[in-house]
Amino acid sequence: MNIFRHPEKSEWAALVQRPRFELHALEQTVQKIIDDVASRGDAAVRSYSKKFDGYDAGILEVSEEEIGTAPDDVSAELKRAIEVAHRNIRTFHEKQVQRPEVIETVAGVHCWQKPVPISKVGLYVPGGSAPLLSTVLMLGIPAKIAGCGEVILCTPPGSNGIVDASILYSAGRLGIDRVFRVGGAQAIAAMAYGTESIPAVNKIFGPGNQYVTMAKQIVSKERVAIDIPAGPSELAVVADHASNPAFIASDLLSQAEHGPDSQVLLITDSEKMIDRVHSEIQRQLGSLSRKEIASKALNNSKIILLNDQREVMELVNMYAPEHLIIATRNYSDLAEQVINAGSVFLGDYTPESAGDYASGTNHTLPTNGWAHAFSGINMDSFFKKITFQEISRSGLINIGDSIITIANAEELQAHSNAVSIRLSHNDDA
Amino acid sequence: MNIFRHPEKSEWAALVQRPRFELHALEQTVQKIIDDVASRGDAAVRSYSKKFDGYDAGILEVSEEEIGTAPDDVSAELKRAIEVAHRNIRTFHEKQVQRPEVIETVAGVHCWQKPVPISKVGLYVPGGSAPLLSTVLMLGIPAKIAGCGEVILCTPPGSNGIVDASILYSAGRLGIDRVFRVGGAQAIAAMAYGTESIPAVNKIFGPGNQYVTMAKQIVSKERVAIDIPAGPSELAVVADHASNPAFIASDLLSQAEHGPDSQVLLITDSEKMIDRVHSEIQRQLGSLSRKEIASKALNNSKIILLNDQREVMELVNMYAPEHLIIATRNYSDLAEQVINAGSVFLGDYTPESAGDYASGTNHTLPTNGWAHAFSGINMDSFFKKITFQEISRSGLINIGDSIITIANAEELQAHSNAVSIRLSHNDDA
Repeated sequence: MNIFRHPEKSEWAALVQRPRFELHALEQTVQKIIDDVASRGDAAVRSYSKKFDGYDAGILEVSEEEIGTAPDDVSAELKRAIEVAHRNIRTFHEKQVQRPEVIETVAGVHCWQKPVPISKVGLYVPGGSAPLLSTVLMLGIPAKIAGCGEVILCTPPGSNGIVDASILYSAGRLGIDRVFRVGGAQAIAAMAYGTESIPAVNKIFGPGNQYVTMAKQIVSKERVAIDIPAGPSELAVVADHASNPAFIASDLLSQAEHGPDSQVLLITDSEKMIDRVHSEIQRQLGSLSRKEIASKALNNSKIILLNDQREVMELVNMYAPEHLIIATRNYSDLAEQVINAGSVFLGDYTPESAGDYASGTNHTLPTNGWAHAFSGINMDSFFKKITFQEISRSGLINIGDSIITIANAEELQAHSNAVSIRLSHNDDA
Repeated sequence: MNIFRHPEKSEWAALVQRPRFELHALEQTVQKIIDDVASRGDAAVRSYSKKFDGYDAGILEVSEEEIGTAPDDVSAELKRAIEVAHRNIRTFHEKQVQRPEVIETVAGVHCWQKPVPISKVGLYVPGGSAPLLSTVLMLGIPAKIAGCGEVILCTPPGSNGIVDASILYSAGRLGIDRVFRVGGAQAIAAMAYGTESIPAVNKIFGPGNQYVTMAKQIVSKERVAIDIPAGPSELAVVADHASNPAFIASDLLSQAEHGPDSQVLLITDSEKMIDRVHSEIQRQLGSLSRKEIASKALNNSKIILLNDQREVMELVNMYAPEHLIIATRNYSDLAEQVINAGSVFLGDYTPESAGDYASGTNHTLPTNGWAHAFSGINMDSFFKKITFQEISRSGLINIGDSIITIANAEELQAHSNAVSIRLSHNDDA
């Protein structure tokens, strides 16, 4: 890790900069895939799966039988773990569901917001070396609580065309309607445009590699909504002199093992914490199976020593980390000062991995500084809030002059006519 | 208006199609403006304002003195109307603010969402023939309720460089921090990248022409969040045999006068309503100052006769209108069947213009079918919901096995280490 001691304020902007990627060539590649899937459907999906991901998808939809037999291949221990995670995620997300409340803004004028679930949602679960079953839970549970009419899932299978049993088990457990063995930009294109096998959806959720992310950005321009912009995962840890260096090192490593482009920051006002965490990292790193990946990520990562906690929180808010651990004695005070972050973990016994899997919060969070303006996935993500209003004749009398006056100021005469024609109408005539 | 009687289901998709625009050339033009503003700042902003909008902006920021004297140029009547609108919009939006609720998902595991206002927001208020002061209210009131740290506003002035007094009065009334006499794509670029005069913001709000809309889309790819995708304004009216044709005609015209690309739909199960509304439109159109604009919009517009109300609501939900008026006797029943719409107006005395100005609901709404997945602007738009969690040692014991088991299934060993290192630690040691 790179160590910065008492950097000048003028250097801070550079310290919180994320690596920038050249996206133009990627955009052209992905646009071609999307156009091809939009015009040729399943045939294009199959050919890209074979070309890029090395598998022959055959029938794109996973059969009910495959989903039905998946539980046989999942250990009782993993099933129990999934139940715990499922219950906590459900508890936390169910509490967020809002009921419409009718507000009489002025006598006779009733207005309300009604959360209505998005009808068709598509969940993307990335492949890679291991099955990301937690992503199924984090996207699928709120989609089912919301009551989205159709919930489909796309995920790349192994090169044998088989989707991991723990993914299928989780999908079956949640009652996800249909599962497709398709990954990459072609999966995003299929869910945006629809193919013979895969239905088009209204909103696409889920993380993915740079192809998937670019595909989501492109289809969101005119076709379909997406959850949040995605980038490499990040963690900032705030420590003081009394933080536990072993705990902190374990958290930094758990972020670093995600991928070589992950970024971790340790921000502290304690000089001695730097060496302690550094040597703990070296000690713990050796035994990790993904130590090469973690080492690469650590090379991009930073330990930043600042003068005091006021500066620490100022830098945190400038960085706007996806994950933020505050492991100081006064973590409750500092928590109040968080302005920009995706998800915040407080105290010594709240590792980030708790939120990744089982505490109940969602792990799909804004990266790359987007926490300045975006929330992580929550129940709002699966609803539209439609406004309704019902105005009585006397209600319209109460606000009619105001409408007419502003409409006239905006030179929109028909807008004021719509009021005056009603107010001059005699119901008894 | 074009009349469609009992169209086949197979024709419905074409009926709800919006006009598509060729965006490629536009994108290139706007990208150049953005790049130029990003690199040359104020000088570029000034030159585009002069080139495209015909004014010499001089000092870009509107002075405190100009804002201070604006009330002298606004009539007492308009001030009163603004007060009524302001009070109702504030009432409706204040009720939406959510308080954090701490949830103990399992013993010792406390999780909560905290809405934190977005620090810096930029509001865009379009120019054109008349000052759209209502847009100042609809964007500025929720931004101030949320407590966004810095709220700035960009709007194009007249060719004399002067911003309309009603805009400045409204901005001053709301306590908007700074106002800039800048419009078009250059205003969006300035708020995204910052210039010498105009600060960069975290999120940009507001409607605009196709240049502004494209600029918002481009800067949202990697720089700044935006409110919702924008397109030409739309209205669908649902009528039955007993609806008031004069009221309906007034509503259709109030939408049509917005611009030649506005779209209005009348959807009904009553044959006789077609002629009645049609002749009312002819009668009312003649006296409108914007009758040429409204006539053009009506040329793109449709009256659709269907077999029954079940079909009517099915087509409405397929169309996903920005504005929906339900003017049938059983409007409450049909309201329950709305799945896709931005804002819904119920009964005979609820014209769409009420929601545009003064009932309290927001008028910034999803167009172009985006109501399938997006809400209109509401308090959520000005907040991030940051999740927090605080876990005790015993809480971590309660979920630790589940975290470790799922982390191992995902082959993320450092994730499970972050738990096991804590649970094997003895606080008393």
